[in-house]
Amino acid sequence: MRKMFLFMMESLDGYIEGENHDLSWHNVDEEFNTFAALQMREADTIVMGRKTYQLMENFWPSKEGLEGDPVVAKIMNNTLKIVFSKTLEKVIEREQWKNVTLVKNNIVEEIKKLKQKNGKDIIVLGSNNFCVTLLENKLLDEIRVMINPVVIGKGTPLFYGLKEKIKLSVEKTREFKNGNILLYLVPQNT
Amino acid sequence: MRKMFLFMMESLDGYIEGENHDLSWHNVDEEFNTFAALQMREADTIVMGRKTYQLMENFWPSKEGLEGDPVVAKIMNNTLKIVFSKTLEKVIEREQWKNVTLVKNNIVEEIKKLKQKNGKDIIVLGSNNFCVTLLENKLLDEIRVMINPVVIGKGTPLFYGLKEKIKLSVEKTREFKNGNILLYLVPQNT
Repeated sequence: MRKMFLFMMESLDGYIEGENHDLSWHNVDEEFNTFAALQMREADTIVMGRKTYQLMENFWPSKEGLEGDPVVAKIMNNTLKIVFSKTLEKVIEREQWKNVTLVKNNIVEEIKKLKQKNGKDIIVLGSNNFCVTLLENKLLDEIRVMINPVVIGKGTPLFYGLKEKIKLSVEKTREFKNGNILLYLVPQNT
Repeated sequence: MRKMFLFMMESLDGYIEGENHDLSWHNVDEEFNTFAALQMREADTIVMGRKTYQLMENFWPSKEGLEGDPVVAKIMNNTLKIVFSKTLEKVIEREQWKNVTLVKNNIVEEIKKLKQKNGKDIIVLGSNNFCVTLLENKLLDEIRVMINPVVIGKGTPLFYGLKEKIKLSVEKTREFKNGNILLYLVPQNT
């Protein structure tokens, strides 16, 4: 069975986004971009909730996305993207945004089936609510949290709305030159 | 001038305490106790806000405190403790709780004077509001955050109420055997 892992950027004070979806505190540079591209290559499938999907769909095929980080933009645009949402009506493929599928029901069952398939790993990108659902249903095999050394004071905390405490084990850490610290964690409820 | 540093335990999702002041998620063991005792010895003065003071005052001189961690209990009971609070009427010294002083006004000025004195460093122990005041007034020379690998879902976030983003530089990290990760950080606003 292949692995499903989540990658999240987090501020030191625990937020995954600031007020009004502010991500300007993300501490990114060339070392980060290289890491991000390599990480994307570990997976052949990207899964997302609605909110993240809508951000990505607007960003990566845009001039800003394509020119800002062409390597990741190309991976994002071509890799299979599966959006899990009860409310989204449909997803639209475009020249620079291929391979998109929408799953509206039976999230847990669909993800279990997906993990049974052959292939590279599955990467989860943000949406808080979607991530909480995955974590509570013991579907995340690994969680990668990159702590950015900045305090932002308010926003959406990591896994906001989680109902039960969950312990994790730290498998590995990596320190980036810009001060970011990446933790590779395995939830102990799986 | 001597240094003032803050030590905080934090969950992976950014909380310094859970609901109803829950600290049961603290991942402590012998290695932690040794670290905590050594850290206390770096300082000859402990500063606190009201809430932390009231917790400490009830805990350390109690049977649970004295027997649970006799080394730290002895240090806590004997070291100079300065409580900063506008609302507290007085502090009471006891057989197992000596050297307590209350400062009701001019926090910033009093702390600046304290830092000018000779001696070992000054350690700050919790209260969120007090810590935010210190950070916003550029009084913290170092912040030590120990990230516990557990998600707790709700509580009081680190530096809750901070009005402006503050970047920090990571000076040093230490990984504990139990998975805790200690970050030594310097605020870039000082």
